[in-house]
Amino acid sequence: MKALVYDGPGRRAWTDRPKPELIDSTDAIVRVDAVTICGTDLHILKGDVATVDHGRILGHEAVGTIEQVGAAVTTVKPGDRVLVSCISACGRCEYCRKAQFGQCLGGGGWILGHRIDGVQAEYARVPFADTSTYVLPDSVSNEAALMLADIVPTSYEVGARNGNVRPGDTVAIVGAGPIGLAAITTAQLFSPSTVIVVDLEPSRLAAAKTFGADVLVQPGEDAVAVVGELTGGLGADVAIEAVGVPETFELCAKLVRPGGHLANIGVHGKPATLHLEDLWIRNLTITTGLLDTSSTPMLLRMLAAGRLDTSRFLTHRFGLDEMDEAYDVFARPQDSDALKVALFRQ
Amino acid sequence: MKALVYDGPGRRAWTDRPKPELIDSTDAIVRVDAVTICGTDLHILKGDVATVDHGRILGHEAVGTIEQVGAAVTTVKPGDRVLVSCISACGRCEYCRKAQFGQCLGGGGWILGHRIDGVQAEYARVPFADTSTYVLPDSVSNEAALMLADIVPTSYEVGARNGNVRPGDTVAIVGAGPIGLAAITTAQLFSPSTVIVVDLEPSRLAAAKTFGADVLVQPGEDAVAVVGELTGGLGADVAIEAVGVPETFELCAKLVRPGGHLANIGVHGKPATLHLEDLWIRNLTITTGLLDTSSTPMLLRMLAAGRLDTSRFLTHRFGLDEMDEAYDVFARPQDSDALKVALFRQ
Amino acid sequence: MKALVYDGPGRRAWTDRPKPELIDSTDAIVRVDAVTICGTDLHILKGDVATVDHGRILGHEAVGTIEQVGAAVTTVKPGDRVLVSCISACGRCEYCRKAQFGQCLGGGGWILGHRIDGVQAEYARVPFADTSTYVLPDSVSNEAALMLADIVPTSYEVGARNGNVRPGDTVAIVGAGPIGLAAITTAQLFSPSTVIVVDLEPSRLAAAKTFGADVLVQPGEDAVAVVGELTGGLGADVAIEAVGVPETFELCAKLVRPGGHLANIGVHGKPATLHLEDLWIRNLTITTGLLDTSSTPMLLRMLAAGRLDTSRFLTHRFGLDEMDEAYDVFARPQDSDALKVALFRQ
Amino acid sequence: MKALVYDGPGRRAWTDRPKPELIDSTDAIVRVDAVTICGTDLHILKGDVATVDHGRILGHEAVGTIEQVGAAVTTVKPGDRVLVSCISACGRCEYCRKAQFGQCLGGGGWILGHRIDGVQAEYARVPFADTSTYVLPDSVSNEAALMLADIVPTSYEVGARNGNVRPGDTVAIVGAGPIGLAAITTAQLFSPSTVIVVDLEPSRLAAAKTFGADVLVQPGEDAVAVVGELTGGLGADVAIEAVGVPETFELCAKLVRPGGHLANIGVHGKPATLHLEDLWIRNLTITTGLLDTSSTPMLLRMLAAGRLDTSRFLTHRFGLDEMDEAYDVFARPQDSDALKVALFRQ
Repeated sequence: MKALVYDGPGRRAWTDRPKPELIDSTDAIVRVDAVTICGTDLHILKGDVATVDHGRILGHEAVGTIEQVGAAVTTVKPGDRVLVSCISACGRCEYCRKAQFGQCLGGGGWILGHRIDGVQAEYARVPFADTSTYVLPDSVSNEAALMLADIVPTSYEVGARNGNVRPGDTVAIVGAGPIGLAAITTAQLFSPSTVIVVDLEPSRLAAAKTFGADVLVQPGEDAVAVVGELTGGLGADVAIEAVGVPETFELCAKLVRPGGHLANIGVHGKPATLHLEDLWIRNLTITTGLLDTSSTPMLLRMLAAGRLDTSRFLTHRFGLDEMDEAYDVFARPQDSDALKVALFRQ
Repeated sequence: MKALVYDGPGRRAWTDRPKPELIDSTDAIVRVDAVTICGTDLHILKGDVATVDHGRILGHEAVGTIEQVGAAVTTVKPGDRVLVSCISACGRCEYCRKAQFGQCLGGGGWILGHRIDGVQAEYARVPFADTSTYVLPDSVSNEAALMLADIVPTSYEVGARNGNVRPGDTVAIVGAGPIGLAAITTAQLFSPSTVIVVDLEPSRLAAAKTFGADVLVQPGEDAVAVVGELTGGLGADVAIEAVGVPETFELCAKLVRPGGHLANIGVHGKPATLHLEDLWIRNLTITTGLLDTSSTPMLLRMLAAGRLDTSRFLTHRFGLDEMDEAYDVFARPQDSDALKVALFRQ
Repeated sequence: MKALVYDGPGRRAWTDRPKPELIDSTDAIVRVDAVTICGTDLHILKGDVATVDHGRILGHEAVGTIEQVGAAVTTVKPGDRVLVSCISACGRCEYCRKAQFGQCLGGGGWILGHRIDGVQAEYARVPFADTSTYVLPDSVSNEAALMLADIVPTSYEVGARNGNVRPGDTVAIVGAGPIGLAAITTAQLFSPSTVIVVDLEPSRLAAAKTFGADVLVQPGEDAVAVVGELTGGLGADVAIEAVGVPETFELCAKLVRPGGHLANIGVHGKPATLHLEDLWIRNLTITTGLLDTSSTPMLLRMLAAGRLDTSRFLTHRFGLDEMDEAYDVFARPQDSDALKVALFRQ
Repeated sequence: MKALVYDGPGRRAWTDRPKPELIDSTDAIVRVDAVTICGTDLHILKGDVATVDHGRILGHEAVGTIEQVGAAVTTVKPGDRVLVSCISACGRCEYCRKAQFGQCLGGGGWILGHRIDGVQAEYARVPFADTSTYVLPDSVSNEAALMLADIVPTSYEVGARNGNVRPGDTVAIVGAGPIGLAAITTAQLFSPSTVIVVDLEPSRLAAAKTFGADVLVQPGEDAVAVVGELTGGLGADVAIEAVGVPETFELCAKLVRPGGHLANIGVHGKPATLHLEDLWIRNLTITTGLLDTSSTPMLLRMLAAGRLDTSRFLTHRFGLDEMDEAYDVFARPQDSDALKVALFRQ
């Protein structure tokens, strides 16, 4: 079969690899019907993620069809159309027993396209299939479900829910890439009164507007001043960091009112400065984290009920064999205006 | 009357000042019967707290007797024995309406001995008396109640409660001064399985032992290794920062397991480094804050019921006129082994 | 001045009464600009509420203009346009200190038009004005704000919030009178996937449809079967009781899935049967309660931000002098299709 | 092997049955080392639990040694000493994914000694062994662990935790049988200020005293008056129902203060009357439920740390072959003063 293989920093190839086979009795083999590329894949390709071995098949967001299951798999069967989530869960360890699947100690967590071969391929082996795949309702398309493999539950759980967005809140979102835009969408599930979005890229701010942002902080504007003016000088109830660099995290810490929440979603490569000399007295709650996929079934239900629109995320569609072109387009959003790209089996 | 007056960095005097008078109709004049000194007072004396004017009477922790009340005061009356808390609350603003009195926008918050004259004096004017003083049950002594003016509710609310200590938890407390010791006491209200205390001062660790710490990390020991060994390599459920310097905060961030809480109590003068490159993925919750005194009535009830022992905090007792000596003893805990000192009207 | 006076069961009169005067220093005198009638007023008129004395001026929902304030009032002043809420709060008692104003022990709670004279009058004395009135933003009309005196915060706090409505939930609301309709509106702030409404009156179900109900259970249909079919046999995540008779409460208990919530808003006059023989094992949470108005500032903010539409509640408008006619219309919703009626100073 | 078999109402026998064998790949065969009898077993014997077939081996609380595991079992192995919990969990269904194992839809929940053969036998087949057994730390004895098969996690989760017991609370527990006594123990993990116990049996009240109850309401005393006197007329913060008859549930509803919690643990066979005409306005939260065993690992940790003493529950010890005598003793606590009885392999 064909697969997208990481060959060390800067090198990727859509190339031949053996079709995966069942290893553990809890595995499933999934035929990949739709797959997308994550900003994290670009980080891996830069060599930023040392835990990814050379020769690894990348990809952790797919929709596919179950081809084969191990002897211990009971809840999915060949032919089932399933979401393959970025998080695998053993379902048995201390963390899984607390529904904190992202922190699985039993061999799960973020493993696909990271510690084991991933889903940017024609077929993939998915461990712990019972607790790591989600059968799709008939009314949910592959394309719509694909956005639930990572960005939507991540922004919901790590952004809106960890940030404790509540009706009437003022929410400041720093970063309007796919995750920031998903944070707009998922924060709105809790009916904030005002969503303010900060980004340096006018095209991303324009996208934020179409996703429902109420106020855009343009490049050159003082975000602290804008938020202050809108909140009687107090600050936002919730700030959501959706970039992953120290400056944006530190900006978020300045945007939050006393008693507010700073929810970090961004994947960081460097430390940030935490101004405790100002913050110790301000009743701030800061959260970090990986998604747990505890919200994935609910989000699928919302998709099926027509309550969630994920179509706006998908800007470019490709055939699976156009993997190289899809990577090129996704890697240059400045030129391509790409948000999420999807590749489909044909 | 006599009062302890701050005269600029390094200068304090127990000197004559006019007896305070009612200004607002919500004020009370309180005769100070017992008062203590806070580490924050020492910070002020070093000149670290720019918001304290020269000439300010210090002190924000007292027990006294109501002498006089303004026309609008309805719940306390002359003769009542009351706790005067470090936090005043207007009772009317947005934050007070949410029981977040520490962040009061209506003229309260931490004002005594800070923005207005404090309680290290024979008499004090206490604003918003209805919502900022607490009538003492007969069975509660002045001495016992005095510990509820600041350190016990602070460590309970900002440490144990913000840190979400739960039965069975492993709790690591960094710092065994009065606040750290109070964090041991108040964390125990939630029945952790193991309380680990880290400090560089053997005498403070010895005190921690008497307060109920289960494991002491001695100077020179590797706290991360000790906590790791006790928790199967995962880390503590809760780390409580009770010092206020970057190193201890950063240590706390290393001590917490994925999904755990870091509750900062320390008063910080400098920023800390937050290692987001490690922490972004670990589902960490960090909280900072000032107490709200929302727990003060409960803690008084616990004192009255004999469920809370505050006597261990008080190591030195003085007459009110021995203010200078009391400051000297409290400022040199290395020599005096002082935890909290109290001064009593005679 | 004119006022609507209760003269014992079945007897009301729009009649002359002395204009109220300040009694306590925390009082305000408010000129009533807009006022509405509550289902509870009809209960009082039937003689069902024994705590209402003959001669009482009724009414607990108004918008008005401050005319005069007592010496202790600091946050509102003559000329301010304010919401007068059904709940008064002393701001000082044990419950008020926990933001549970509806249970105020200091003389507040539901007192207007109940234990003291109310607001169906040209003027009203409002106790504890600082903590019981809300200054209106310029952009919020009297008419829109009036719905926040009772039904919207009641349905939000006691229905949606106590019921813990979460994104993706199935919510069953039993009763489509004003409170049930407000429960649809406020439940939607948490983005349920499906709102099911049960009522026996086709016109009320039609109103529910316009308020956004997804599924209507018609008279004669089996609500348990309908909810079961929509939820794979499990039941609703949340059932909200908005009628106040045993049958509807008992129906709600049958509609909830294991692990779900039953939030009672209805005002009950008789006991209900709780089928513990079925429910003991089902992890049910049942809540009752009076609103606390803790959400009132947030709801005003939502109104000001254009995020909340209260206009649909108001079906009939009158002049203040048309009080009798307004009562007649409100008391016969079957004929008048009245939801809420409002009376305005002219 | 020998087993305790239910042969219809009033008939039980310690008799020969075939040794169980593995059926599903997720099963384990456990050699029973210690087992206890539950009040529920007595209910079954009376014929009260219609879902128990004749011929069923009873028992759902055991400690044993793994003899054999199915192919899909990965976390326990032959020779492991394990707790067998009253709750089995498939680990894969909607409820298990939310850590609500008690409501398992995948074949688990309370099944042992109920829908399948139980553990009052020399050997038992335990389904879903990975998610339904708990390896015991070396320092925890069989006898101590046995109390964690049901009564301790039940009283912790369904009583103390659902009831939201908090430091300083007044907790009223109605019923001082094993579950009520366990509720005293587990409520104390949250440091209430006062625990009041109500029972009609003086010997049970005496036991409650030794378990740490602060106040006993003797037969003939008015519990509402006693609680009122201790709480300034308000009522208890939490009432825990630990009997299972309408009268005790209804008493609990009278004992709770406005804003308080009523946590039902009792297994009920009849409906109760809920006085909504009084309660609708009191902000009451009522919870029912089966345990989820989400607390079981924590409670084991507490046992291992010496923080939990379960020895007081065990009043009578037997050999496994003395099953008949053990049942007789347990069924007549009035005569035997039995709390929990345990039977051990010899």
